[in-house]
Amino acid sequence: MTEVTQSGAGWLSREEMDAARERLPILYVDAVPVRVDDHGVVTAVGLLLRIGQNGQVKRALVSGRVLYHERVRSALLRHLEKDLGPLALPRVPSAPQPFTIAEYFPTPGVTPFHDPRQHAVSLAYVVPVGGDCAPQQDALELTWFAPDDVRDPAVLAELANGQSTLLLQALAHLGV
Amino acid sequence: MTEVTQSGAGWLSREEMDAARERLPILYVDAVPVRVDDHGVVTAVGLLLRIGQNGQVKRALVSGRVLYHERVRSALLRHLEKDLGPLALPRVPSAPQPFTIAEYFPTPGVTPFHDPRQHAVSLAYVVPVGGDCAPQQDALELTWFAPDDVRDPAVLAELANGQSTLLLQALAHLGV
Amino acid sequence: MTEVTQSGAGWLSREEMDAARERLPILYVDAVPVRVDDHGVVTAVGLLLRIGQNGQVKRALVSGRVLYHERVRSALLRHLEKDLGPLALPRVPSAPQPFTIAEYFPTPGVTPFHDPRQHAVSLAYVVPVGGDCAPQQDALELTWFAPDDVRDPAVLAELANGQSTLLLQALAHLGV
Amino acid sequence: MTEVTQSGAGWLSREEMDAARERLPILYVDAVPVRVDDHGVVTAVGLLLRIGQNGQVKRALVSGRVLYHERVRSALLRHLEKDLGPLALPRVPSAPQPFTIAEYFPTPGVTPFHDPRQHAVSLAYVVPVGGDCAPQQDALELTWFAPDDVRDPAVLAELANGQSTLLLQALAHLGV
Repeated sequence: MTEVTQSGAGWLSREEMDAARERLPILYVDAVPVRVDDHGVVTAVGLLLRIGQNGQVKRALVSGRVLYHERVRSALLRHLEKDLGPLALPRVPSAPQPFTIAEYFPTPGVTPFHDPRQHAVSLAYVVPVGGDCAPQQDALELTWFAPDDVRDPAVLAELANGQSTLLLQALAHLGV
Repeated sequence: MTEVTQSGAGWLSREEMDAARERLPILYVDAVPVRVDDHGVVTAVGLLLRIGQNGQVKRALVSGRVLYHERVRSALLRHLEKDLGPLALPRVPSAPQPFTIAEYFPTPGVTPFHDPRQHAVSLAYVVPVGGDCAPQQDALELTWFAPDDVRDPAVLAELANGQSTLLLQALAHLGV
Repeated sequence: MTEVTQSGAGWLSREEMDAARERLPILYVDAVPVRVDDHGVVTAVGLLLRIGQNGQVKRALVSGRVLYHERVRSALLRHLEKDLGPLALPRVPSAPQPFTIAEYFPTPGVTPFHDPRQHAVSLAYVVPVGGDCAPQQDALELTWFAPDDVRDPAVLAELANGQSTLLLQALAHLGV
Repeated sequence: MTEVTQSGAGWLSREEMDAARERLPILYVDAVPVRVDDHGVVTAVGLLLRIGQNGQVKRALVSGRVLYHERVRSALLRHLEKDLGPLALPRVPSAPQPFTIAEYFPTPGVTPFHDPRQHAVSLAYVVPVGGDCAPQQDALELTWFAPDDVRDPAVLAELANGQSTLLLQALAHLGV
């Protein structure tokens, strides 16, 4: 989650946002992009490739903040479009119930999820995408993995902040 | 559910099926067909219009039996195609978790759900359909209702076997 | 939710909290307290009776903010204990998945949920309570209603901020 | 699931049940027994130790058939009591929604779940148990494992019929 920025969105200055991040849990959404076949079976899971703040390359789910006066489903769509491009055709779930929540703590070890910048609580959804994905902004690439391949420890190790746990939770929820 | 027949599917003769129905809970699927907009918001709910065994016209969800050696998602697709036609383009959920289960008892009053023919336990799913729906076989019509309209007591009263309860559970799950 | 205060909890001054409330969605939890029998069947639903800011008496679910560096389940327990007393013995769900989320907007009509003070996003859980409940602080009373009685339009009308919708969603989820 | 028998329950003779098992999907319930602390956090997962039909010792979840005219929650309670004894005090979930379904196919490889005797579709629930467990009938022992220990490949390998997958799905759902 570390590369996600909402600069320009304009509700808070960076200083105000930094202050809030030290005082309040920040509401996030996490999306696991998937390809599905005609039967709804997940055939691939998409992971972003990003350059982290320390210059390391790592993989990530689609993730970002919910803004003031923004619907959760609008935040999901905004972050999916920002990361996957305008032609991805994501199918945001109709039901608001997330498949789980991820509690990212600034202190490591409280939960499997960690975010050094803040205490973020994220609503996690699986989102089928039907269109063409083109990585945007700070994402170098979107890579599709077969469900069995994405479980490879080498792939999971490239996910930061505990998102490997969230990915495995999504796969378990999907029954694949 | 009373009009649903799987004759011809061929795993059981009618007599054998009748015997099983007096001895075992029968596994069903129920699907609530919905139209969604680009944000995943449900804009309409589809109900079938059928002629019941007593000649009365009534409304129904898509519903039917899971066959021997059939995946639940295949049964969902088969019943959706049977009732909505081959061009409906249903998007069967990727996750196997139903939003609820409906226990149809042959004895009225045990649960809100009733099926005079059998004890059926149904896995219930909301299924967005993106294509053109054409009622098939014993369905006279598929009618799309706005979420607010489908809650009208007059509409709910046309649903038999307690499916009005299941429809309201689906709407609650969808947050509409 | 209007009476919920976290004064004294101390992470933010009232002025800072007021400022944050104009800039960020605030993370909440909502709990629907229930009594269950040995089979897990819900036999009663608990509603708080409160004096609102305008002096009107109204009913409410257990509801409150998640604090910085607080686990969601700890927030649930804290608000349940605050409202129901120390002997209520709430059984907070083991799974973090809420049965739904409620998006309370400061602008009425965006969603069924409304909070004039803020944009709050609430994770909603059903919580069986096994012990003795004694209303605390600003709650006058906790009233247990049979599931059929709590659906009475006169009771639902006493719930503010759209919590009648959330209550009905909980009942639908519970299948009662 | 292979050791589960409903002999004596009496709705079907063994021959009739065998015939039905070749023709219809059979409705099952699976329960993952857990110990929870005051915060609802899962501290242990219970696995049964059984002697399989081939004389091999193996571990199993609580699992069994739903009978004709039996509520799903009653079937859950019946199988929990049968396997864990009358003092286990299981807390069957109030909501009927299972955390997933497991489709056990007689043909290996169709799904992760396999049952050589039949096509069974199982509704899976996590059930906190608060009392004393004493293995009954054909179970030799109930062993409690810490969540981290139960994930040990050596433990998972002792679960038959794909129940290791179901156990991992339960742990993912629980966020542990």
